[in-house]
Amino acid sequence: MTEAKLPGKENFSEWYHELLKAGEIIDVRYPVKGMCVWYPFGFALRRNVYDLMRELLDPDHQETQFPLLIPETEFMKEAEHIKGFEDEVYWVTHGGTSPLEIKLALRPTSETAIYPIFKLWVRSHADLPLKIYQIVNTFRYETKHTRPLIRLREITSFKEAHTVHATWDEAAEQVEAALNIYAEFYRRLAIPFLFARRPSWDKFPGSDYSIALDTVMPDGRTLQIGTAHLLGTNFATTYGITFENEGGEQEFANQTCYGVSERCIAALISVHGDDKGLVLPWSVAPVQVVIVPILFKDKERTLEVSREIKARLAAAGIRAAIDESDERPGAKFYKWEMKGVPIRIEIGPRDIENGVAVLARRDGKKLTVPLDGLLASIEEEAADLQEAMLARAQAFLASKVKDCETAEEARVQTAAGVARVAWCGSEECGHRIEEEVGAAVLGEPWRSSEKGERSCIVCGARTEKCALLARQY
Amino acid sequence: MTEAKLPGKENFSEWYHELLKAGEIIDVRYPVKGMCVWYPFGFALRRNVYDLMRELLDPDHQETQFPLLIPETEFMKEAEHIKGFEDEVYWVTHGGTSPLEIKLALRPTSETAIYPIFKLWVRSHADLPLKIYQIVNTFRYETKHTRPLIRLREITSFKEAHTVHATWDEAAEQVEAALNIYAEFYRRLAIPFLFARRPSWDKFPGSDYSIALDTVMPDGRTLQIGTAHLLGTNFATTYGITFENEGGEQEFANQTCYGVSERCIAALISVHGDDKGLVLPWSVAPVQVVIVPILFKDKERTLEVSREIKARLAAAGIRAAIDESDERPGAKFYKWEMKGVPIRIEIGPRDIENGVAVLARRDGKKLTVPLDGLLASIEEEAADLQEAMLARAQAFLASKVKDCETAEEARVQTAAGVARVAWCGSEECGHRIEEEVGAAVLGEPWRSSEKGERSCIVCGARTEKCALLARQY
Repeated sequence: MTEAKLPGKENFSEWYHELLKAGEIIDVRYPVKGMCVWYPFGFALRRNVYDLMRELLDPDHQETQFPLLIPETEFMKEAEHIKGFEDEVYWVTHGGTSPLEIKLALRPTSETAIYPIFKLWVRSHADLPLKIYQIVNTFRYETKHTRPLIRLREITSFKEAHTVHATWDEAAEQVEAALNIYAEFYRRLAIPFLFARRPSWDKFPGSDYSIALDTVMPDGRTLQIGTAHLLGTNFATTYGITFENEGGEQEFANQTCYGVSERCIAALISVHGDDKGLVLPWSVAPVQVVIVPILFKDKERTLEVSREIKARLAAAGIRAAIDESDERPGAKFYKWEMKGVPIRIEIGPRDIENGVAVLARRDGKKLTVPLDGLLASIEEEAADLQEAMLARAQAFLASKVKDCETAEEARVQTAAGVARVAWCGSEECGHRIEEEVGAAVLGEPWRSSEKGERSCIVCGARTEKCALLARQY
Repeated sequence: MTEAKLPGKENFSEWYHELLKAGEIIDVRYPVKGMCVWYPFGFALRRNVYDLMRELLDPDHQETQFPLLIPETEFMKEAEHIKGFEDEVYWVTHGGTSPLEIKLALRPTSETAIYPIFKLWVRSHADLPLKIYQIVNTFRYETKHTRPLIRLREITSFKEAHTVHATWDEAAEQVEAALNIYAEFYRRLAIPFLFARRPSWDKFPGSDYSIALDTVMPDGRTLQIGTAHLLGTNFATTYGITFENEGGEQEFANQTCYGVSERCIAALISVHGDDKGLVLPWSVAPVQVVIVPILFKDKERTLEVSREIKARLAAAGIRAAIDESDERPGAKFYKWEMKGVPIRIEIGPRDIENGVAVLARRDGKKLTVPLDGLLASIEEEAADLQEAMLARAQAFLASKVKDCETAEEARVQTAAGVARVAWCGSEECGHRIEEEVGAAVLGEPWRSSEKGERSCIVCGARTEKCALLARQY
């Protein structure tokens, strides 16, 4: 158990790095930069998060797995795509001491591994739609500064989905379905986000358009935590993915792909954590309830009741732990708060006499509840806590997004938040905005109901469009 | 749906390759030799098998994940270990277009990735025992003939466990605990096996000893389906894994590692499958029950009852499917038999009138059962089928192992089975046996109760030891 004292969350970068260690999420001491080791506790969290993802995908997708290594010849086929990745690809050139005839790329993402096989799997309209996903490690030779769980050279848990459809419209509908799934995923993690249609110069290489989910980190910079891409027939044309339509003619298929990486866990840690450590949503916390017996007299009886409680919780499907160690209660509280446990039960001899226990929620709320109705109380508090976490995070995000009328105003706003400015939508004005504001165009808000004509802050043209601007992780 | 006709199982190699395709387990058409794609159905089976493995490991191990890429400097530290793998390692030499300063190995197995971190995690006796596992892809640049799920260049699902202990004895006990877990794992898959202590020249590079599980394939060759290694302090000495003992002194730790790969699925397919396709144990079948409505009159009513049955089964936690397609019943039977579904329910209008349904087990047994007690009947038949599969497989394995008195006899026996011969245990006699018999020494039987002095078939020395010999996959 690491007993490091966390720096305050206002020093976000230091706090984040310390918390990954003190909360036992990942160990960054692996001897290759940008590659890291999951601590068992961190991996337990990851398992719960990705099990949730599977739960949401499984009703309408099939899980598969494709090889990591992609022959250079396949990888190089899609010109625009390779341009987007060529500086970042790790290459395997040798097997044993022999040079390989064809170099093998470590997948940066799997389009070029999967689509030659889709060509074989898709023959007729009856094979469509095809919807698969895989959860795999992918690689980027990042030359920029790496950051644990945020900018890694080995992305340890990339969930990528790939779908094939008969028409462009059906593919576009699938992009929306994917966004709905991701919205639900993040709702259950109590993480709010913004949808943005990425500008043309920042879309996925080889796509028609890309929609991203960005959350706002404690320092006001945004983190992209999911993307969905409409590929149209671009890759299908390159890889020859065709199908016989109902009229008996061969057509190119339309495709989408969408992904979420372990950045979802970076967001989970950053959005909810506090000066005492992790704050994990009930939905995915490896330990949902920790029981801390207060041991000063009637030790045996107190332990016995604590173990009974644990058994009752476990029987109800709650992930419960009991801390029977010799440490003082204060030290135990500290330790389990660091681990983000949503609810702590404190129980001592006097409580047992009175037939009660104390529930301490990770957000500070404390209440005494009867042992009789303990399970109902816990379920109620768990639901309330999850809602409170989401509401709190939503309020934070809302406070970080502001309409700005000028580039100067947007510059000030994006120092620690997201600016929304009127933008005619042209690439030229977009680049000018990025230069003048010193922040990136996240894109146009997607699924936004706000409308109203304003003037593009660069060219002055009247427009209903606007751009979200931020400094990005 | 592939409608290939399988060759008979007596042509094991062709049968196996065709079944992987017709049963939609894996697709071997990926453009790199020895790397393959999991079909969704195959991956569903894999998920169930590895979930079972997790269920067995989780009570006493923690899941983690370590990086794929290992710097050459770490990889080269353990001399004996590297000697065992150096011809088989894939090397990453470039990131983008730049050569890397230090080459990176794709893990062939993860000792050299994990143990530098264990050095950091293990400080005192209080940190011991440490027991972790990971399920990852690993790589071997195989120059021999590759075989799907058996000899792959990308091992897609290697479950490797690594443990650290204070003493050699505790580590040796952990090897036994690991063997118990694997025995239970294979019992639930209805796959019998032999335990063998590998001969010194075939133990894991860098270990004190290795115990393997070998099953017998339909053609009488053996397949290694699990191994457990006692590493002693060999790696700890190289990587500096020490702990402060209770007396306050630094000691080198003792270690074990043990693993199972997707060969467990190759065994599952090979041991149980028949001329009609896959035969999957109830425990892991992606579809445990398929309902085939016999639709000739009262179609709606028949479908309605079928759907009710499916809902009842699903509510009981049974993985059930219903085949509502327009195909003839015979075609449906064929299709689901190919997929290895343990129990088929046939139900038509006359059955409904009589309040019964027909249960057809994948092993050919058929019975009519009342709809009232359907669930109980299915559970009973499922348990019986699983036992019958194990008994059948055990009888096959037993029929394939024979005591032999001479090298010539062993040569005949190992053409299609396993020979047991008296062996003094010396490396010299072991090599002579391999030469004369033309088969490999699997090792000495482990946990075998059979004793009795015989004469080594090479040197004639009196010995209680014996060797298992076989041709190996």
